[in-house]
Amino acid sequence: MAQRASTQAIGFLMQQGLENADCLSLAAGFVDPATLPVDLAQKAISEIANQTAQGQISLQYGAPSGSDQLRAVFRDHLTQLEGPGSKMQELPLSRMMLTTGSQQFLTLVSQAILNPGDICLVAAPTYFAYLGVLDGVGAEVLPIAADNNGMDPAALNSTLEQLAAENRLHKVKLVYVVSYHDNPSGVSVSEERRPQLLDCVKRWSKESHIFLLEDAAYREMNYSGETLPSIWSFEEASHNEHVILTQTFSKSFSPGLRVGIGVLPPQLVNSVTDIKSNEDFGSAHFNQNVVAHVLKSGDYQRHVKSLHTAYRIKRDAMLAAADEFFSDIPEVTWLKPEGGLYVWMSLPSSISTSFKSPLFRQATEVNKVMYVPGRLFYPSTWEQRPDNQMRLSYGVLNAEQIHDGMKRLAEAVKAVIS
Amino acid sequence: MAQRASTQAIGFLMQQGLENADCLSLAAGFVDPATLPVDLAQKAISEIANQTAQGQISLQYGAPSGSDQLRAVFRDHLTQLEGPGSKMQELPLSRMMLTTGSQQFLTLVSQAILNPGDICLVAAPTYFAYLGVLDGVGAEVLPIAADNNGMDPAALNSTLEQLAAENRLHKVKLVYVVSYHDNPSGVSVSEERRPQLLDCVKRWSKESHIFLLEDAAYREMNYSGETLPSIWSFEEASHNEHVILTQTFSKSFSPGLRVGIGVLPPQLVNSVTDIKSNEDFGSAHFNQNVVAHVLKSGDYQRHVKSLHTAYRIKRDAMLAAADEFFSDIPEVTWLKPEGGLYVWMSLPSSISTSFKSPLFRQATEVNKVMYVPGRLFYPSTWEQRPDNQMRLSYGVLNAEQIHDGMKRLAEAVKAVIS
Repeated sequence: MAQRASTQAIGFLMQQGLENADCLSLAAGFVDPATLPVDLAQKAISEIANQTAQGQISLQYGAPSGSDQLRAVFRDHLTQLEGPGSKMQELPLSRMMLTTGSQQFLTLVSQAILNPGDICLVAAPTYFAYLGVLDGVGAEVLPIAADNNGMDPAALNSTLEQLAAENRLHKVKLVYVVSYHDNPSGVSVSEERRPQLLDCVKRWSKESHIFLLEDAAYREMNYSGETLPSIWSFEEASHNEHVILTQTFSKSFSPGLRVGIGVLPPQLVNSVTDIKSNEDFGSAHFNQNVVAHVLKSGDYQRHVKSLHTAYRIKRDAMLAAADEFFSDIPEVTWLKPEGGLYVWMSLPSSISTSFKSPLFRQATEVNKVMYVPGRLFYPSTWEQRPDNQMRLSYGVLNAEQIHDGMKRLAEAVKAVIS
Repeated sequence: MAQRASTQAIGFLMQQGLENADCLSLAAGFVDPATLPVDLAQKAISEIANQTAQGQISLQYGAPSGSDQLRAVFRDHLTQLEGPGSKMQELPLSRMMLTTGSQQFLTLVSQAILNPGDICLVAAPTYFAYLGVLDGVGAEVLPIAADNNGMDPAALNSTLEQLAAENRLHKVKLVYVVSYHDNPSGVSVSEERRPQLLDCVKRWSKESHIFLLEDAAYREMNYSGETLPSIWSFEEASHNEHVILTQTFSKSFSPGLRVGIGVLPPQLVNSVTDIKSNEDFGSAHFNQNVVAHVLKSGDYQRHVKSLHTAYRIKRDAMLAAADEFFSDIPEVTWLKPEGGLYVWMSLPSSISTSFKSPLFRQATEVNKVMYVPGRLFYPSTWEQRPDNQMRLSYGVLNAEQIHDGMKRLAEAVKAVIS
């Protein structure tokens, strides 16, 4: 496992971040420190501590998957997001799991489902930290074309068809979909495609049971007001389900608390729970109590509304700066996200954006601005992966810094092109 | 991994705990809720939150292994435990890792070191949750005789000799030692044996590098005042070390915060850090800040002193009750621990203590008291493992309940013997 885990792009990225600390960072995928709810966390903790018994309970072990009492609070929250009448309301608590961020949940289900050599299909591009997890379990990762509406069900279907023709269908165990405001592209899977992706997965579950892992990390980070039903919601309850759902409070509340939620199909409950128990006996019970407290008090919901305003301003600042500084550069395009933390930009195909490219050197050494090279978001074994893209984050910087960062980046691009 | 993780004794034990909720529990290996530092945690959090920037930082991501600033605080703490002049003072921070309790650290290093089929040697008896981790990674687990002075270096040597004769020495990768007030036996490895165990591991590192994993979870839970140097302290610094050290704040402060520390040999830093990054990007930064704060303020050290008083009273209550109720039962013996949370008791060899035994049924159904069967603390593949032992915990109950629980248990034993 150590050998498989050892080629981590994220480690290199973090190192670059440290080495280029004098740059304006459009690279860091962090939330804005100014929005972190110090007062709300403190208030919640005081209220918990003032009931001594509750304070003691929260400082004691919980349960490996989270106590039933807390899981019921998190289920209420998911039910509210799904909307009235959702089957979420009836979900057995045993199928919910509280983890150390959603990242740990992604790792646990991958460990439970995938043997070395098994195949996982992902959108191209997709979340690079999950590509690291897949490398860690020794999975083969294949890219599925995605566009403005997310992963393309037709492309998914034809890849599965191709794998069947190669007698490799039995190796396919998992399809990974970031369903809302994807990292890196900001794109959501359209409402029309959600059931289509699920149907495709069910249709091709012939030689092995194929799971669809729905990563809804950015679900609550929508700045346009329109909310889509989860892919999870399109599946009827049964003993043999396909969709695994995960969400996190790292974007909408605090990454330092590391509270994530997962919803498991019935047939995965025992195995994932066993692996979780082995791993750490359960994530921090104290933190689960803090998040449950703000969910119940309404402080969380009010905080998320204020986040929307703050990030909408920053997203708009980045898009306005893109218009201002990149419109006159030929063959530069970018997507306009309705949520999340990222703008995904493509340069002329002749311009490499990778860590060793002239552009990265120009940007970090001369113009003092840093981005994340697009190559990181594709399976490392995919030879045709594009090399001319960048992930630009409006998470950490304020509107003025974003404007300045985009200006610097455009200057770097122009310098390299000319 | 799911299949390997699926035979968890701890799960069965927790289920028994739930089913026998009307029993006095000498089984639960938890700390006393009355000792949990609600006020200290709240005070620390207020002080952190009152410096807004510090509050925001603590709610942000840390680093996968913990930030350098925090790791320096935890290194200071370990240095203080090791005593003046310890090489701990000079430890590069990159070799320290902050984890979700020490349990996660145990899992991460096991994943890094052990392939399926590799051999790990453990004391007999030893900590059952770690046996679950070893099953999870597919290791072969062999028992090494232990007595009042902990794991026996001569027995370790002869097992390694035997494995060499069988051409299996190259499979041996790890020796696991709970060095202070072991769970379940309460025994510490004697000062004399500490360097002997290390020497033995080094001497037999011929065909593979054998690591010694020192689990010092109960190091700070010593009620007699005498402190021993860690096994780790006996090794000279080099690029190719053997001892891995781990400790936790789950016993001495709060399990609900899930803060553990590990010290890695240089050659394991990259692999364990990569696996940790994949797993969760780092444990809760907020909680690491809380523990670092109480370490710096001195509140932690004062709290640990008060714990010693509280647990000494409870340990004495259990030993007094053992004298009072078990002295007249032939062939019953028990160890007298100087720390930890447990008393380890042996019954006549004809009396089974396992979950399905007449004694367990008598104790839980008639006398309403629960213990942990000793079999759980031996490798499940070891056919000769003793079946007549019990782990009795004085962690959760108060002195009066402990007295009552021991009385009930003696009645159950007498009922089964007669």
